[in-house]
Amino acid sequence: MPQVVNLAEKLTKFQDHWAPRVIAQMNDYQFKLVKFQGEFVWHSHASTDEVFLVLAGEMEISFRHETITLSAGELYVVPKGREHITRATHECHALLVEPQGTVNTGDAGGQLTAQNDVWV
Amino acid sequence: MPQVVNLAEKLTKFQDHWAPRVIAQMNDYQFKLVKFQGEFVWHSHASTDEVFLVLAGEMEISFRHETITLSAGELYVVPKGREHITRATHECHALLVEPQGTVNTGDAGGQLTAQNDVWV
Repeated sequence: MPQVVNLAEKLTKFQDHWAPRVIAQMNDYQFKLVKFQGEFVWHSHASTDEVFLVLAGEMEISFRHETITLSAGELYVVPKGREHITRATHECHALLVEPQGTVNTGDAGGQLTAQNDVWV
Repeated sequence: MPQVVNLAEKLTKFQDHWAPRVIAQMNDYQFKLVKFQGEFVWHSHASTDEVFLVLAGEMEISFRHETITLSAGELYVVPKGREHITRATHECHALLVEPQGTVNTGDAGGQLTAQNDVWV
């Protein structure tokens, strides 16, 4: 049987930034926790939407012609194929939902590319 | 462009129980808010897992040989095909994630069956 997943407890298990940890899997989708601060890289995901739910702090998602701000308790669906970049002035904690195998840097690659399927 | 979804604000938009409201769609999956109190019906979903994330209050999910308790900030994946029943002594608010078209009462039907694709 699956275990109950306590988000706050899982967030104590890692401290590094831009390195999502899987906490649950539903069909072929994964729920991941991520901590970050500063600015990520411009990228897009060609084959999937991506959901962010902010748990603590505040983040921005910029698109080429718009920037949205998400605070704790706010959710956003980044449409597939849409170029975006995430950033946070102070450390932000978020829950991501996306298909298993989704690479955090999408089509961009680079040094911020995280290993997939790392559970916590 | 999708809108920012504030969970607390969306929760003010409806008061009825056992009637999930869609707040976001990611690919063919939907994010739904639900309020409930009392006991639901035994049912299962033959073709999909189902995720509960408790936002406020506390709920139980019973399976045939086990009962788990979820508090605010806790997430659970109900495996596909697993018979279960949900209940809450006091009103509970939860976020559901499941494929579009998933019927709340699964294979059981009955008077608690909610209309699908009702957005709030």
